[in-house]
Amino acid sequence: MVLAYIVAAGMSKIGRREESSREIVAEAFEEVTTVVDPRDIEAVYVGVQSEVYEHQIMYGALVAEALGLLPREAYRVEACAAAGALALHTAVMAVKSGLVDVALAVGVEKMTAKPTEVVTDALMAASDIVDQLSGVTIPAHYAMVARRYMYLYGATEEDLCEVAVKNHKHALDNPKAHFKKAVSVEECLKSKPVATPLKLLDSAPISDGAAVAVVASERAARRYTDAPVKVLASTVATDTLSISQRDDIVWPTAVWEAAQRAYRQAGLAPSHIQVAEVHDAFTINEILMYEALGFAKRGEGYKLVREGQTYIGGKIPVNPSGGLKARGHPIGATGLAQIYELYLQLTGRAGRRNTGAEVAMAVNEGGVNSTAVVHILAI
Amino acid sequence: MVLAYIVAAGMSKIGRREESSREIVAEAFEEVTTVVDPRDIEAVYVGVQSEVYEHQIMYGALVAEALGLLPREAYRVEACAAAGALALHTAVMAVKSGLVDVALAVGVEKMTAKPTEVVTDALMAASDIVDQLSGVTIPAHYAMVARRYMYLYGATEEDLCEVAVKNHKHALDNPKAHFKKAVSVEECLKSKPVATPLKLLDSAPISDGAAVAVVASERAARRYTDAPVKVLASTVATDTLSISQRDDIVWPTAVWEAAQRAYRQAGLAPSHIQVAEVHDAFTINEILMYEALGFAKRGEGYKLVREGQTYIGGKIPVNPSGGLKARGHPIGATGLAQIYELYLQLTGRAGRRNTGAEVAMAVNEGGVNSTAVVHILAI
Repeated sequence: MVLAYIVAAGMSKIGRREESSREIVAEAFEEVTTVVDPRDIEAVYVGVQSEVYEHQIMYGALVAEALGLLPREAYRVEACAAAGALALHTAVMAVKSGLVDVALAVGVEKMTAKPTEVVTDALMAASDIVDQLSGVTIPAHYAMVARRYMYLYGATEEDLCEVAVKNHKHALDNPKAHFKKAVSVEECLKSKPVATPLKLLDSAPISDGAAVAVVASERAARRYTDAPVKVLASTVATDTLSISQRDDIVWPTAVWEAAQRAYRQAGLAPSHIQVAEVHDAFTINEILMYEALGFAKRGEGYKLVREGQTYIGGKIPVNPSGGLKARGHPIGATGLAQIYELYLQLTGRAGRRNTGAEVAMAVNEGGVNSTAVVHILAI
Repeated sequence: MVLAYIVAAGMSKIGRREESSREIVAEAFEEVTTVVDPRDIEAVYVGVQSEVYEHQIMYGALVAEALGLLPREAYRVEACAAAGALALHTAVMAVKSGLVDVALAVGVEKMTAKPTEVVTDALMAASDIVDQLSGVTIPAHYAMVARRYMYLYGATEEDLCEVAVKNHKHALDNPKAHFKKAVSVEECLKSKPVATPLKLLDSAPISDGAAVAVVASERAARRYTDAPVKVLASTVATDTLSISQRDDIVWPTAVWEAAQRAYRQAGLAPSHIQVAEVHDAFTINEILMYEALGFAKRGEGYKLVREGQTYIGGKIPVNPSGGLKARGHPIGATGLAQIYELYLQLTGRAGRRNTGAEVAMAVNEGGVNSTAVVHILAI
């Protein structure tokens, strides 16, 4: 099968930004223009949740215009917080199809301009029929998952907080992270309840930011670099939108399924993955992912972080960027922020966060693990 | 280049429907299950504007669940009314990429449950910065285009109405059309003003409906049919979202650009196209498209319909289904409703609407010709 390559990646500073979403995209894009001539880009795929945060759709056209890329092919892809990785997946399919030689995947979100009191719009990502009318929010969904996981496997609130402690520590060395502040288990345990047992420090922040990646065919990639990042696998899998319809709410079937397909596509096993960026929207979810990705046995994921194995320097470093928790979680941008970190890791550009990894995995999800997108990259 | 094939297509009855959007999708899907075993489908791409009409996102997962297709790859693509054709374009890329053998493209919209008085949500498709704050609606945008076209080229309100007369006549023979009612130029001229010079009968209706197409690789296509429909071209091009930023508002640059790329991809010229389905959201737009697609000279599109050349039996039949105007315009479904009609035409299943065409073109657009999607199909 024809391979697709990532030849450049860019990311804005993540955090509370004064600029507009399109200015933030331009900041991320500028970073790739040192490698790729914008005139080479033939198609633009955009992940964004702008109908929720900006009362705006048609974002493909808006981004193409903002980056001077009209009249190129441009459109939006959407599965809530999985949109960024879906933009990459679509770019990978475009390049592998032979229809496009060089594609730009864009993820962006400007969240802070919207009052945080307005949660009804974010509920668009919950099933209208089953969940929206009940008023159960996204944090409440994850809280139910956490409660059930703790009940089944004996994990504690301290174990969840260990994920936050690790990811905040990693972000200390990430100059573009939303938070560069260490937190302790005690601080996490004492932080304000969001949806018990989840507390403020178990939760990813509301962030503004953008990230981009340039995907190229083998022929085109050679123009830009001698060592492009190979996309060994790009997969998507889907579970029921409402967690009420799942047999087992602590087993993220879509993540497991997408990972299984990715391992098959790449011809690799979990033991081959040397670094991973995973979707820790809430601390509990990073633990679920350890298990669904095969890094830990079922029901034992929380022990992995307790033992320090997912720190940089551990057996399988997870979220060296700081993850959604500390790097930040600008919804549509997150999937590509993960890819940006792995691009830096694989090309040795991550500074003090460098793990020396040659094989990496990214896992982005939307709708409480309803849509899961997995990429395996290698240098 | 590897070809992709359409091996089956389905469409619900279009109109005011009592059923839910997911029930309407199931109705369209049932039509393809006579040809394709649902277990063969590996990926689902969905075009829908559900954040506007249903306060719902994550529609890829919802459709996969409704059709019994979990845990397949599934996600939504969006460029307002161009979403249906983008679902097909994504399915075509997926199949050509080699990642997927059989893909389902879905378009759906349930519009009538939303009060028509609520226009602010539909304004999400206008640039928030330039147009939304001014309150100019989508019909008003097309009205400005119509006024300018009439001024420049001497077309009249009668000429615009001729498009409505033709498309309503075509829909008389379409059992799934929203309207099966002939209209005269006089009735059109006397109909209520929507945004002058456009009147009610210049405007596509608010409709519920769904359409689907199954795209397969050559190897997979052979399992289903000896005569699959070939996808000779699948292209997307983009113009500024706000028409205020365009040099010439009566020249749909994105449509022209996507058509030029499609002709190159297929190795064909306008004279080879034997039937077309085009995006007549308002009558003026069908006339603009005649010109941008090369069916008529610039400024002379209105003469084509005046001379009867775009009727079934004419030189280049356009919108034999009745078009958006009379078949109906369920936003996310429209691009695939066009494909459904061309699938019927190319396989000789269109009954009294049969044109005998062997080469066909579909043109779907979103955001007042900001995103244009062109497909060329052949038997």
